[in-house]
Amino acid sequence: MAFEQAWLDYSRKLSCEGAGKIASVSIAIPEDRQDDLIGNSVTELQRAFLGLFGRELSVHTGTKACDGICLAFREGMQAEAYHVYEDGGKITIEAADSSGILYGVFALLCHMRTGGSLSGLELAKAPVMPMRMLNHWDNMDGSIERGYSGESFFFEDDEILVNDRTVTYARLAASVGINAAVINNVNVKDAATWLITERYADKVRELADVFGGYGIRLYLSLNYAAPMEVGRLNSADPLSEEVRAWWKKQMAYIFQKVPNLGGFLIKADSEGRPGPFTYGRTHADGANMLAEAALPYGAKIIWRCFVYNCQQDWRDEKTDRARSGYDNFIGLDGQFLDNVILQIKNGPMDFQVREPVHPLFGRLTKTNQMLEVQIAQEYTGQQRHVCYLIPMFREILAFHTYVAKEHDTVEDIVSGRTFAQKNCGMAAVANTGNDENWTGHDMAAANWYGFGRLAFEPELTAEEIAKEWIRLTFGMDEEVEETMLHILMTSWKAYENYNAPLGIGWMVNPNFHYGPSVDGYEYSRWGTYHRADHLGIGVDRSGEGTGYALLYREPNASVYNDKERCPDELILFFHHLPYTWKLKSGKTVIQHIYDTHFEGVEMVDEMVERFKKLQDKLPQKAYQRMLERFLHQKEHAREWRDQINSYFYRKTGIADEKGRKIYG
Amino acid sequence: MAFEQAWLDYSRKLSCEGAGKIASVSIAIPEDRQDDLIGNSVTELQRAFLGLFGRELSVHTGTKACDGICLAFREGMQAEAYHVYEDGGKITIEAADSSGILYGVFALLCHMRTGGSLSGLELAKAPVMPMRMLNHWDNMDGSIERGYSGESFFFEDDEILVNDRTVTYARLAASVGINAAVINNVNVKDAATWLITERYADKVRELADVFGGYGIRLYLSLNYAAPMEVGRLNSADPLSEEVRAWWKKQMAYIFQKVPNLGGFLIKADSEGRPGPFTYGRTHADGANMLAEAALPYGAKIIWRCFVYNCQQDWRDEKTDRARSGYDNFIGLDGQFLDNVILQIKNGPMDFQVREPVHPLFGRLTKTNQMLEVQIAQEYTGQQRHVCYLIPMFREILAFHTYVAKEHDTVEDIVSGRTFAQKNCGMAAVANTGNDENWTGHDMAAANWYGFGRLAFEPELTAEEIAKEWIRLTFGMDEEVEETMLHILMTSWKAYENYNAPLGIGWMVNPNFHYGPSVDGYEYSRWGTYHRADHLGIGVDRSGEGTGYALLYREPNASVYNDKERCPDELILFFHHLPYTWKLKSGKTVIQHIYDTHFEGVEMVDEMVERFKKLQDKLPQKAYQRMLERFLHQKEHAREWRDQINSYFYRKTGIADEKGRKIYG
Repeated sequence: MAFEQAWLDYSRKLSCEGAGKIASVSIAIPEDRQDDLIGNSVTELQRAFLGLFGRELSVHTGTKACDGICLAFREGMQAEAYHVYEDGGKITIEAADSSGILYGVFALLCHMRTGGSLSGLELAKAPVMPMRMLNHWDNMDGSIERGYSGESFFFEDDEILVNDRTVTYARLAASVGINAAVINNVNVKDAATWLITERYADKVRELADVFGGYGIRLYLSLNYAAPMEVGRLNSADPLSEEVRAWWKKQMAYIFQKVPNLGGFLIKADSEGRPGPFTYGRTHADGANMLAEAALPYGAKIIWRCFVYNCQQDWRDEKTDRARSGYDNFIGLDGQFLDNVILQIKNGPMDFQVREPVHPLFGRLTKTNQMLEVQIAQEYTGQQRHVCYLIPMFREILAFHTYVAKEHDTVEDIVSGRTFAQKNCGMAAVANTGNDENWTGHDMAAANWYGFGRLAFEPELTAEEIAKEWIRLTFGMDEEVEETMLHILMTSWKAYENYNAPLGIGWMVNPNFHYGPSVDGYEYSRWGTYHRADHLGIGVDRSGEGTGYALLYREPNASVYNDKERCPDELILFFHHLPYTWKLKSGKTVIQHIYDTHFEGVEMVDEMVERFKKLQDKLPQKAYQRMLERFLHQKEHAREWRDQINSYFYRKTGIADEKGRKIYG
Repeated sequence: MAFEQAWLDYSRKLSCEGAGKIASVSIAIPEDRQDDLIGNSVTELQRAFLGLFGRELSVHTGTKACDGICLAFREGMQAEAYHVYEDGGKITIEAADSSGILYGVFALLCHMRTGGSLSGLELAKAPVMPMRMLNHWDNMDGSIERGYSGESFFFEDDEILVNDRTVTYARLAASVGINAAVINNVNVKDAATWLITERYADKVRELADVFGGYGIRLYLSLNYAAPMEVGRLNSADPLSEEVRAWWKKQMAYIFQKVPNLGGFLIKADSEGRPGPFTYGRTHADGANMLAEAALPYGAKIIWRCFVYNCQQDWRDEKTDRARSGYDNFIGLDGQFLDNVILQIKNGPMDFQVREPVHPLFGRLTKTNQMLEVQIAQEYTGQQRHVCYLIPMFREILAFHTYVAKEHDTVEDIVSGRTFAQKNCGMAAVANTGNDENWTGHDMAAANWYGFGRLAFEPELTAEEIAKEWIRLTFGMDEEVEETMLHILMTSWKAYENYNAPLGIGWMVNPNFHYGPSVDGYEYSRWGTYHRADHLGIGVDRSGEGTGYALLYREPNASVYNDKERCPDELILFFHHLPYTWKLKSGKTVIQHIYDTHFEGVEMVDEMVERFKKLQDKLPQKAYQRMLERFLHQKEHAREWRDQINSYFYRKTGIADEKGRKIYG
């Protein structure tokens, strides 16, 4: 098995009804519109047929020779959409643009490789979200912030890498519909500040062109203080003419060198990063300055809403980090230029295993918005535990904000349906590195695969996506599929069970965020508290507390505000409750903690037992690699269970109803 | 003020009765015995007289010219001892060896600079401990493990540094009687493994010679696995003939290159370091192999007893890290060669603010022993908080082990009085770096100064030592002296007050060991637990618990074993007690926690208020540097107070009797 090909490994021979007749690719596209994407589409077909069937496809140009697979433009289709159909043994892939052709090729191959037949084939899809983006947090020294699968393949020793792996990356990303990628860490420092200068421009162009050949726009993270660090100005004030002029000049430079650059991602005034607050300006001032400079080049400014006070005093119970994104941005709604997109994390905190949906969704009505999720599993097992996140993402997308009578879900908003927007979509903090299998845990690749598929077709269920990924990656064996599907589909719940309970989050070791530490963030400056004492636990974010619950539209606000109605899984996020409080499940809070923690471990044990039965059905290297991680997860889930149970048993003195072993 | 001269700054003019007549130094020592030490003694006198009095001393050889300060050997005196006396205006410094002469010079200068007069002068001291050693944990890349005052001045970029600072270091160390120093970290890795090879031998010699000129023997930390890493053998088994031969060859090499090398320090089978356990051998096997190889060169092997299981399961209440040093070494008593010294930390854990004395002291009766303390303040404020440790060290030295009817204290043992040993003494993990003032906090220098003075003359009180250091460093102002003395003498108690209570230790942030984290080490693998639940706290180390208390000789064992008799300050180290337990002080455990934590902060506030009054009396640079640290300590002591009080209030629900603010 060629692990570096991930789900595009064509070395497993395939039998597919109708494929036997396919011997050629015809390019029925005017020559002046045959770009790299068309070339790469053809190459992908050739590569696949050679691998899957041992057959070399011939290539023809023009409509006449069209008796195998025919690539053709059809005007009037939606951008990036594809239509693939069979007619008399001939397969036609139609699209309005070459991205659509490429997506059609990948859709056809996916169909064939997951058991579909060619006769009567009819596939037609248009991507639901306009932007489907990966955010890589790669540093130019080769390290990756919150990276759990090796070093960067974009950077090494302060240089940009462009090589075979870059191409494979682009193929994998494009195959699931990714059409944008930021390659450098949002915390932009040192060499990365210079990516927009002549020091790197040629190499940025080379990379942008490779990406472009697969329909992926290259984006860069910007250092807001670049006018000072690069330009030697003594300010980065967004209202300073000098600063504005510097950005215009610098943008002119980089877009002249790299015309197909998509734009920029900015983390400003957050966790020590510079920003407009330094100059008493708003985020709208900051974002618009950049947007104005980027506008002539059709580029976008993606501005992160992850802004909060990271120097909070834990003694201060009034300040609520959960409110900060909302409080910092709600007053700016309508002030941003149209090529600005606010990138909003799925929850108000930071990628915990369970959070409510970010309250800006449904409150911002005149601002372009993008949903940011994280597949890097920073807080969900760091690609050592399996935690398939697509079910979580689907829940988030399905959340009703009540901003409108219809089309009011998060999916509606970031797809552009709610406010008729085009600059919107979904971004995922990526989980890739230079590990042979890209993602450390082989099963973590399902999150990369799934994120792209979900952003393209959010109507797919998490199961459907998982099945596709399993079949493409491991083949069509039923036992493999059933087992892998079981593991993936139970993994998020299992992780939530043995993690921090009932939506409270943050019971992790500080800094590296791995492994349990109930009080790890309790007395810290990060605004992340559980407020557990011997009687109760939870943060009062109701109207009588920090008021956070009331930021939502009705009826969400009333539901979250009322401890009798608030969903169990979020109850400690919104309310401080006695351990003896009866949940809607009928259990007390303390018994819920004990039960879920024992259950979480049992679920992992079950996963591992099932997984072991696949020993003879998986490539041995992959099996061993996964087994090692599963055995670690098995032990580490116990560590979570025991630390959390012991912590609460010691604190409350309340025994487990079922008399299971809790260490005193 | 020349900060880099620390307490040897001679730039402050001095008036000293009788010093006005001194115009020369006479060296009444046979020429063939005039070594570097004698030369450095003379130079020190010249430098001091020039600085203090603006007078150049002439130098003569032979007895005739002896009308100023006369240096003379007198046979029959103890090694390193000095006798300094005035007779008719003439000052004689007598000793049996040149180390004694140098110590006499420093004693004379100290006497003059701390207010003593020369008329009727009579100073006679012999060092009480044979070895008075500093252990530097410097890495060859220039970093210092647990270093809090800058980078290393011994190493940079994998090279050894020998320069002016080396000489000043040697003068400072020698001036307080230090006669041995290990320059490299006990965790020997990478380049440091090669210090005993030709890669570094010439430079090691150069450094050893500088040290030698001040009576300091250079020691190196060894990598136990050097036969494999350097010698390319496939084992480091101490009973392997091949391994033994390799060490003999390597020792022959390094001692031929550096004949005055003192020997080696070894951390083996500890915290991941290699050792004889790998081969099923004992520490005696390991140490004796090295001792045999080093014996022909008169060198010593200092073997650390800091051996414990650092992969403990926190759920396991039977294993007790406190026992491990004892359990690992007690069975080896009498098996070590005479040039082996076991280096034993002052307590069974690791340099906490309060620990019982290590139980090996008083149990080992046929083994050379050295007491290891730490002035680097790893767990006592890291040279940002002031914490004068000499009062702690004196308590440790005064501890009666009851190993004999008399001469049974730790001081007796490590001075060689108890078992008539010579290879013994005291070592301190050093607190120096390349900060201008050597020790980060200017007041931390009192620990360096004090350690040396204490090892030389343990009969000195902590106050006497502090006064000397204050006078030498800041001059003779009474207010300065009174204030500094108050601060130093209350600092350990203040730190203990706001730190972990009643001897339990370890409530610090993992890894970097700075700042409060009550549960930071509670569920860890390090064997460091407080076992607090909502009813009580403490580790049962009595006979009914881990049995640790019974390792001591009577009556210590009975006292520690009995919760009614165990001293308050150690009671949670030895016993698990309810929060409502009445201490001998009359307070409950919980009220003691609250009271001491409020008191600790008040003590710091008092220190800082007093210190601020010295603004016009101290060099401004030093004042500002200290003020900044005091203000940090003031705030950080509150962090300790509030986190610890909140933790226990939340856990117990017991209110403070005095109704002070505790954050819920």
